[in-house]
Amino acid sequence: MTVDRFKWVLGVCMIMPLAILAKESLPYRDAKLPVDQRVEDLLSRMTLEEKVAQMRIFHANKGIEFSDDDQMVLSEDVVGRLEHGIAGIKNPGEEISPLRAAKLNNELQRYIVEKSRLNIPALFVTESYNGVDAEGCTRFGRPINMAAAWDVELTRSVWDVIGREARLRGMHMCHSPEADIVRDPRFGRMSEALGEDTYLTTEMIVAAVTGVQGGYGGTGWNTTHIGAVTKHFAGYGQVLGGSNFAAIEISDRTLIDEIFPPFKGAVQRGHALGIMASHGDLNGVASHANPWLLTEVLRNQWGFKGYIVSDSNDIARLHDFMKVAESHEAAVEMALRAGMEIDLYSDLAYVHLTKMANQDPGLMPFIDRSVGHVLRTKFILGLFENPYVDLNEVGKEVRKPAALELARRMDRESIILLKNKKQLLPLNGAKHKKIALLGPLLDQEAEKQFEKAAGPGVTFSSMKGFCLTDEQSGIPKLVEVDDGIIEKMVNQARDADLSILFLGGDEYTAKEAYFKAGLGDRNSIDPVGCQDELVKRIKALGKPVVVVLKHRRTLSINVIAEQADAILDCWDLSEFGEEIVANMVYGAYSPSGKLPVTVPRTIGQLPFHYSQKEINYKKDYLFSKKGPLFEFGHGLSYSTFKYGEPEISGTEMDSNSRLTVGVDVTNTGNYAAKETVQLYVKDVIGSVTRPDKELKGFRKIELQPGETQSVAFTITPEMLTFTGMNMKPTLEPGDYHVMVGTSSADHQTVAFRLNGSKNIAAR
Amino acid sequence: MTVDRFKWVLGVCMIMPLAILAKESLPYRDAKLPVDQRVEDLLSRMTLEEKVAQMRIFHANKGIEFSDDDQMVLSEDVVGRLEHGIAGIKNPGEEISPLRAAKLNNELQRYIVEKSRLNIPALFVTESYNGVDAEGCTRFGRPINMAAAWDVELTRSVWDVIGREARLRGMHMCHSPEADIVRDPRFGRMSEALGEDTYLTTEMIVAAVTGVQGGYGGTGWNTTHIGAVTKHFAGYGQVLGGSNFAAIEISDRTLIDEIFPPFKGAVQRGHALGIMASHGDLNGVASHANPWLLTEVLRNQWGFKGYIVSDSNDIARLHDFMKVAESHEAAVEMALRAGMEIDLYSDLAYVHLTKMANQDPGLMPFIDRSVGHVLRTKFILGLFENPYVDLNEVGKEVRKPAALELARRMDRESIILLKNKKQLLPLNGAKHKKIALLGPLLDQEAEKQFEKAAGPGVTFSSMKGFCLTDEQSGIPKLVEVDDGIIEKMVNQARDADLSILFLGGDEYTAKEAYFKAGLGDRNSIDPVGCQDELVKRIKALGKPVVVVLKHRRTLSINVIAEQADAILDCWDLSEFGEEIVANMVYGAYSPSGKLPVTVPRTIGQLPFHYSQKEINYKKDYLFSKKGPLFEFGHGLSYSTFKYGEPEISGTEMDSNSRLTVGVDVTNTGNYAAKETVQLYVKDVIGSVTRPDKELKGFRKIELQPGETQSVAFTITPEMLTFTGMNMKPTLEPGDYHVMVGTSSADHQTVAFRLNGSKNIAAR
Repeated sequence: MTVDRFKWVLGVCMIMPLAILAKESLPYRDAKLPVDQRVEDLLSRMTLEEKVAQMRIFHANKGIEFSDDDQMVLSEDVVGRLEHGIAGIKNPGEEISPLRAAKLNNELQRYIVEKSRLNIPALFVTESYNGVDAEGCTRFGRPINMAAAWDVELTRSVWDVIGREARLRGMHMCHSPEADIVRDPRFGRMSEALGEDTYLTTEMIVAAVTGVQGGYGGTGWNTTHIGAVTKHFAGYGQVLGGSNFAAIEISDRTLIDEIFPPFKGAVQRGHALGIMASHGDLNGVASHANPWLLTEVLRNQWGFKGYIVSDSNDIARLHDFMKVAESHEAAVEMALRAGMEIDLYSDLAYVHLTKMANQDPGLMPFIDRSVGHVLRTKFILGLFENPYVDLNEVGKEVRKPAALELARRMDRESIILLKNKKQLLPLNGAKHKKIALLGPLLDQEAEKQFEKAAGPGVTFSSMKGFCLTDEQSGIPKLVEVDDGIIEKMVNQARDADLSILFLGGDEYTAKEAYFKAGLGDRNSIDPVGCQDELVKRIKALGKPVVVVLKHRRTLSINVIAEQADAILDCWDLSEFGEEIVANMVYGAYSPSGKLPVTVPRTIGQLPFHYSQKEINYKKDYLFSKKGPLFEFGHGLSYSTFKYGEPEISGTEMDSNSRLTVGVDVTNTGNYAAKETVQLYVKDVIGSVTRPDKELKGFRKIELQPGETQSVAFTITPEMLTFTGMNMKPTLEPGDYHVMVGTSSADHQTVAFRLNGSKNIAAR
Repeated sequence: MTVDRFKWVLGVCMIMPLAILAKESLPYRDAKLPVDQRVEDLLSRMTLEEKVAQMRIFHANKGIEFSDDDQMVLSEDVVGRLEHGIAGIKNPGEEISPLRAAKLNNELQRYIVEKSRLNIPALFVTESYNGVDAEGCTRFGRPINMAAAWDVELTRSVWDVIGREARLRGMHMCHSPEADIVRDPRFGRMSEALGEDTYLTTEMIVAAVTGVQGGYGGTGWNTTHIGAVTKHFAGYGQVLGGSNFAAIEISDRTLIDEIFPPFKGAVQRGHALGIMASHGDLNGVASHANPWLLTEVLRNQWGFKGYIVSDSNDIARLHDFMKVAESHEAAVEMALRAGMEIDLYSDLAYVHLTKMANQDPGLMPFIDRSVGHVLRTKFILGLFENPYVDLNEVGKEVRKPAALELARRMDRESIILLKNKKQLLPLNGAKHKKIALLGPLLDQEAEKQFEKAAGPGVTFSSMKGFCLTDEQSGIPKLVEVDDGIIEKMVNQARDADLSILFLGGDEYTAKEAYFKAGLGDRNSIDPVGCQDELVKRIKALGKPVVVVLKHRRTLSINVIAEQADAILDCWDLSEFGEEIVANMVYGAYSPSGKLPVTVPRTIGQLPFHYSQKEINYKKDYLFSKKGPLFEFGHGLSYSTFKYGEPEISGTEMDSNSRLTVGVDVTNTGNYAAKETVQLYVKDVIGSVTRPDKELKGFRKIELQPGETQSVAFTITPEMLTFTGMNMKPTLEPGDYHVMVGTSSADHQTVAFRLNGSKNIAAR
């Protein structure tokens, strides 16, 4: 019988009760038994078809919706996909309100559980890098803003909200956070990750994972939050040329010391329930078919117990795109044997598994391992006991005031004051009474927010002037701006006492570059269009200029940095961005963000991150200035801070001891303000070439005017460990420098000596 | 007794004869014995001091010269350095004529031999990448030009001349050729190497090594030529950011498949007598202290029998700069144990060896191995039998007409016709009677050469106009060009029928970036200064414009490529460059060079070489054109060529068979001309991600108008071998494409299938 859709409710209501009764006493249904035992029992009862179904996730972009009379309607396609059960479904209900999504997902889950011979629930999966990617959830600033805030607890709180809001709409897993180290601003996705630094990213990733998982600690249950799928394992931030889907070249040492730690942190400290592989190859080996990555490192070395999921269609792409498999079947075998457990979206890959396993029983252990990890996750999430959302909770919990306040707070903490000539900011309403708000990134809400923040006596005029891009069918084009428009903007600035320019990049100048038509990577990091000209012509009026920078990739803003009197670097703020910027401009709070990336002067300086080896910093280039435009860790305040001399608890340590480095920081200015005290460590001599310095600690503190606080960091042997000549963790005796200060370029140094015999084995 | 200098002749004349008589019967002096036996015997007679002396080369930049009465005078410093003998001396006599250098070096060698207790001669060492780097020798085009000529036999002939001319001035080794793969045009030394491609570089390196070594084949003697020290092992072309001395990151697979082959070719096919290590680290391990590179790969895997020498001061720099050794002594031990045998220049490293070996006899085997390799080289070069130059030969052989003609021929073959709109070139003297020669790269000799080439009836006017750079104490600055000067040049062009612009880069815009003050790398690949403006303003006159491009790094000449009617890309020609260009412009011969690099549109496309993995080519960047400005292998001719359909001898092969691919090429134009037929191979599916295509053969042929030639290439299993998942040489059954054509972008494809079981072990 061929029907497009059919209503299932009546049918299942009639056959289910008996089946449920019969199975209630089975071991896998006993919540008191250890999870591993339940997994083993359930696995033993499953058919091959049922197992393979637990290795696939499909996308609910159509076929799952409410009918006009509020009954869930499934398309024939979806019904077919659910025949033997399913590992999970991506984004069901993403375009409807949280409450309706919860209702829909409850019904969908009920259908799946009751339709399934063994009543196995499904995982509903979302994306959530700056809030649950679904209608009606709190929208936070992007991950790059979270990194710019340098506040681990704040990040954890934000992800706690994300986890709660997701679970309350019926979600169980998120394909977030992104643990990629992003050092190439050509890459369109850089704002989805946490910047260039390994330590900062690791701390933020652990906070995100533990936050979104509600503190799930590797044992017990996670019933109020969701599971994190940390991605993209591994090296995805290192695509050659910053070009999505390109090849990746990283030495094993760099991989282990600089790229792996956020993933290792997610697994070992965060107990992440999932890992997603990277689109890329890694030194020639496709990450989706890399047994070293997926099994040796992740399982054997790190003890990862969650599941490993492919990126969209990437198992099939081992054949279609990467060209490392002669057929889809060969791709399936490569991926499965390497350790890939769930085929995301593809109808071309693990769909072949049943037939293949029937022909080759040698595949069964890999299938069982995969299914075991998926089932384990479902048990941990309590889905067998209660797969449904309590609809009464949804309205109370989603977008509650505390969540929205958290979004505002993250914005406040993440804005970076790059420059503030003659302490122009915060603005004084008495001094600058007519303000022009200008530029392509000006939001229509801005004027209202600035009026509110400035209070009476200050008048604002707004003129966006032009858009940067014009997008047609996914292909953005640069807009040619008529000189008359620039002239009008200059005239408006002439009439004002001061201009605030909203510059940077729009959503089309930096985005994920999709596989086919979509573009999102750039081969330039200069601001697009006539923005440089605009700021020059307005500054030429001789009046103060403030630039509010909004962007999703690092931009080499040489002209803006030279012309503007003050620059607030906002990256990509939450839904409350305009309110927060306006209040900050008028001094409601001082900026306290610090750059999570190095800002190069030119794309020709790439690769350029502060922790490069010292030998990379020795050389100048011809005809150009040395060094970055702004250093990693840089960020000013409305106040000023004085650092005392750092004190170290001793000048010698050994592999079993620790040292403490303390420093007094005093707010010597007139504003209550926050400062992020940064700790860098340098191995003066190593058996392999060592980074110029590495961030190994930071502490964000709040100081009232005149107040002094002491900040202390512990120096541990772990901080000094690196991958030695023999590719093993190595701790070497010798001299170390510890740097404490306000940025990677502005700090004071103390030294100590690590004693011991040559090549102490690291723990 | 302290004297500044002293005359040694009388003294040695009195004591030597007796000593020589006594030693004549020793085995190491017997030329009939096998070299290894002589080495062993000599080694057994040497003191530790004498051995360590055979591990050092110093630079003869002062202290070795002729006195006013033509007696060799050695400074006290030099005398001290020679006390126990010496491995070699760099550049003695480089600033004097070949004949006088030969005399000086004969005297110097005589001093060393006779002063040495065991009469061990020294190696005199030079640089020679485009001719012996010394006064009075033939100056050829740079290596990048040799690569652009795509003529292996011509390259061999050029290096044969270099080897002869060097030996005749008393040299024995050259620190050339450079086998580095150069893919980053920011790197100041790119023109010293042979471009971006592994195969082209390998063939050229083997030709250079066998040429300069006079065909020395691993046994017998090399008495008419010199030994080649191939450098910089390994990965030096891959310095991060194109910045000299920076860190190097390469995966092992890329290293083995793309970076090693030219070195392996130099060792196994060229029998190079020396290898120099790279300044750099390689994935964290300093190349000068890398036992895997220097011992495992070079000695154990490849069977290298020559000596390994440091780059200038680099053993000491393991401590001073790379910071991988706690002291100079520690640096010495690391380097020695890794396999480093000669300390070049440094007075800070192997100078400590005597003391160290006295304290630690465990170092002796490494010292003996090192000295053995040095002595072996000296035996092979016949230095024990006849360490002196026959002065009668010098005048007859150096810069003889055939050598100079070879320099001209290499120039002719290397010039690349990038563009030739409406067949503007060759110029017709009857059509364009007034020619303006303009631009910063205009040589003063050009007008004379053009007049000669054009013949009567054509008049030339010259105006260099401006220089690109102004160098003071090693720091080049860009010259600001007054608009009045540009205006004058435009006026001169206005008076002419046609302009020839000499553009590109001068010697300061691309050079080796020295360790301290010197600059040479760039963070841009745009032409410097107002060259784009010049070509635009002159083209705006509406008259034809020819651009002669001279440069030492790849330049993204977007504006020039758009504006000029014709472009002759000359890179850096020989001393006869102006003559050759003028004759080519007037049709004495057709251009036949092909690009040995990919020319990117912007530095933001880097890394960009044609053999990148296919996955790197899939993506566009926002707001910009896809693909390169000019493709690898591109180069036009005054004539035109028609390719027939390529024919393959079969559609299947196996690991023991070969196929032949043939194609007919016809000169369909009006000029006798040369064409380089290029063969590319693509592995359609590989177990690791594979290059988009790889050059695996080329043949430069000369065709008269109307003439057809058949070109055939053999497809061998070796061509299809790569480093597989298991890091071993792998040959995989499956489909392959063979592309034959005129460039990496313009070719026809035939296919074949390699049969066999999965993962045939490669031989």
